[in-house]
Amino acid sequence: MKVLFVAGDPKPERWTIPIQSLLPEAEVYAWDPAGEAVNADYAIVWQPPQALFEREKHLKAIFNLGAGIDGLLKVPNLPAGVPVVRLEDAGMSVQMAEHVVHQLVDITRDMQIYRDQQAAGTWKIHRPIRRKDWPIGVMGLGHIGKRVARTIANLDYKVSGWARSQHQLDGVTCYAGPDQFDEFLGQTRVLINTLPLTDDTRGIINATTLAKLHPQAVVINVGRGEHLVEEDLLAAIEAGSVKHASLDVFTSEPLPDDHPFWSCPEITITPHVSARTQRDDTLEQITTKIRAHNQGQPITGVANVNQGY
Amino acid sequence: MKVLFVAGDPKPERWTIPIQSLLPEAEVYAWDPAGEAVNADYAIVWQPPQALFEREKHLKAIFNLGAGIDGLLKVPNLPAGVPVVRLEDAGMSVQMAEHVVHQLVDITRDMQIYRDQQAAGTWKIHRPIRRKDWPIGVMGLGHIGKRVARTIANLDYKVSGWARSQHQLDGVTCYAGPDQFDEFLGQTRVLINTLPLTDDTRGIINATTLAKLHPQAVVINVGRGEHLVEEDLLAAIEAGSVKHASLDVFTSEPLPDDHPFWSCPEITITPHVSARTQRDDTLEQITTKIRAHNQGQPITGVANVNQGY
Repeated sequence: MKVLFVAGDPKPERWTIPIQSLLPEAEVYAWDPAGEAVNADYAIVWQPPQALFEREKHLKAIFNLGAGIDGLLKVPNLPAGVPVVRLEDAGMSVQMAEHVVHQLVDITRDMQIYRDQQAAGTWKIHRPIRRKDWPIGVMGLGHIGKRVARTIANLDYKVSGWARSQHQLDGVTCYAGPDQFDEFLGQTRVLINTLPLTDDTRGIINATTLAKLHPQAVVINVGRGEHLVEEDLLAAIEAGSVKHASLDVFTSEPLPDDHPFWSCPEITITPHVSARTQRDDTLEQITTKIRAHNQGQPITGVANVNQGY
Repeated sequence: MKVLFVAGDPKPERWTIPIQSLLPEAEVYAWDPAGEAVNADYAIVWQPPQALFEREKHLKAIFNLGAGIDGLLKVPNLPAGVPVVRLEDAGMSVQMAEHVVHQLVDITRDMQIYRDQQAAGTWKIHRPIRRKDWPIGVMGLGHIGKRVARTIANLDYKVSGWARSQHQLDGVTCYAGPDQFDEFLGQTRVLINTLPLTDDTRGIINATTLAKLHPQAVVINVGRGEHLVEEDLLAAIEAGSVKHASLDVFTSEPLPDDHPFWSCPEITITPHVSARTQRDDTLEQITTKIRAHNQGQPITGVANVNQGY
C-alpha cells in the first residue's frame, strides 16, 4: 500500500517519518510538486493542489488533516466517489471548549477591566454577574459543538444548541433546522459558532441573525470566517446591539493589516489558534483508519460530500 | 424568634428586607453599634465586632456570610459552644471554577501574547501546548476545591488533589495529609489553592513548597492571602522556578499601593473577585437553615471551630 502526504509543511518529514513508523507495512511519500504519479492508495491532505487529482488516479480514500473539509471541497477536480475522511476530534474539541470558556469568562466577567486596573495599580471591585443574564447559544452540535456546549452547561450557564438535525444533550436545550432557528436566537445572548462551513451556513451570522439575539449580545466565532458577514458585525457593534465579539477565524487569513477589526476595541482577535491539530493524535487516528480501510474494515468519519461535512 | 444582621454594609436594609420577607415569622434587626441588646436568637455575620458577643448573650447559632470562617474565629470573645455555620456554596464554587479555568488557560495558552499581538496589529501563531506538560494540583477538596478539580479534569488536564483527609474524586488522583504532601507537590506544575485558612495551612505556599513543584511552575491562589508567603513567591519568580502567579487574595487587602506585586509582570492581580457571595442564594440558604434550627431540625455546614473550618 502506498500513502501520499500532501500539505504545505516546509518540512514534510515531520509527518512522513512518524507516518512510516506507524504504518511500517506502507510505502510513504511526500508530495513533490514537480514529481510524477506514485499511484498512491491513500492521500493525507490539507488544502491540496488540483495537480494531486490530475496525477493520482487510484486513490481509495482521502484523509483530511482537519475536521472542516470546506478547503478540500473547493478543489474543483476532487474525484467523486472517493471517500473523504475528516479528522475526528484528535484533541481539538477540548482545546476549543477551553478556548471558548476562556473568551466567555473574559467577556462576561469583564476581565479586561481588571487587567487595566492592575496596569494602573487600582484595586476596585465591580458588581458580579448573574448567570441568568448570560444565556448561551451554541450553533453546531458535532464533536466540537457538543463538547463546547456541555462544558459551558457544567458551569451552570443556561445553554441552547442548534444544528441542522435534532440532537439530545444533557443540560442543553436543543433546536433543529431552519424552522427553529429564530426561537434558538431569541434564547441567546452569547452566540457561539462551531458549524461546518457549507453553502447553507455561509454568512449565517448576519444583520438579521444578530438582530434576533438578546440586547448587548456577544459573538464567539471559532467556526470559519465565512460564517460571519464581517460588515454586519461592525454595524451591530456600532449600533450597540452587539457588546463584544471574540473572533478566531476570518474571511481572509492572516487578517489583512488594514482590516477595521484591528482597531475595534469591542473585538478580540486570535489568529486561528482556538484548536490546533495535535500531530501525534492526528497521525495515530489517520494511520489506524488507513490500516483498517486497507483490510476492508469499516471506518468512521467519512464525510457526506454533498452535505459538506 | 429574633434575627440580627451584623455586617459592614452601609445599607443593611439591602439584607434585612429580604431576610424579613424570607422569614416572616421572625423579628429582624440590623446591628446598631450604638444600640442595646435585642436578645437575638440568631446572628448573620461577616467579620463582626467584639461588641456583638458582649451584648448578645443568648445566641443559638451564628451564620457566617462566607465559606471561610477565619475572620470570625479572629474575634477573641466568640462564644464557645454556640454553633458557627458556614456558607455552603451559594453559587460560589462554580464562580471559583470558571475563574480558575480562565486564569489557567490565560497562562498555559499565553493569551497575553495574543492580546499584545492584537494591540500591535500582528498575526502570529505560536506553538500549541501539550496537556501533559501542565499537570495540575488542587489544594483543598471541600465544595470549592472539588468543583475546581473536576472542572479542570473535564478539560483533560492531569489533576491531583490534596487535602487533610482522604477524598475520592473521579478523574483526580487524591493525596491526603502531611505525609503525602511532597508526593502531591512533585506531581504538580500548576498549584491551585482553595484551602481554608487555619493554623495548619497559614504560610503553606512558601519557598520549600514552591521548590518541590515542576520547573516553570504556576501558582493560582483563590484561598486566602495568608496561605502564601509573599516574599517567597517573589524570590521564586526572580529565580525563574515560578513562571507566573495569579493571585485573587492578599495578606493585606486592598493590596497596598507600594506592594511589589503591582509591578511584577509575572503576577496577575484580581481584587478578591474570584467568587462573590450572591445575596439571593445566600439568604435563601441561611434563612432556610434558621427556620430548620429553630424547629429543632439538624442543619448542615456547622463548622468544626477547633479544626478552623
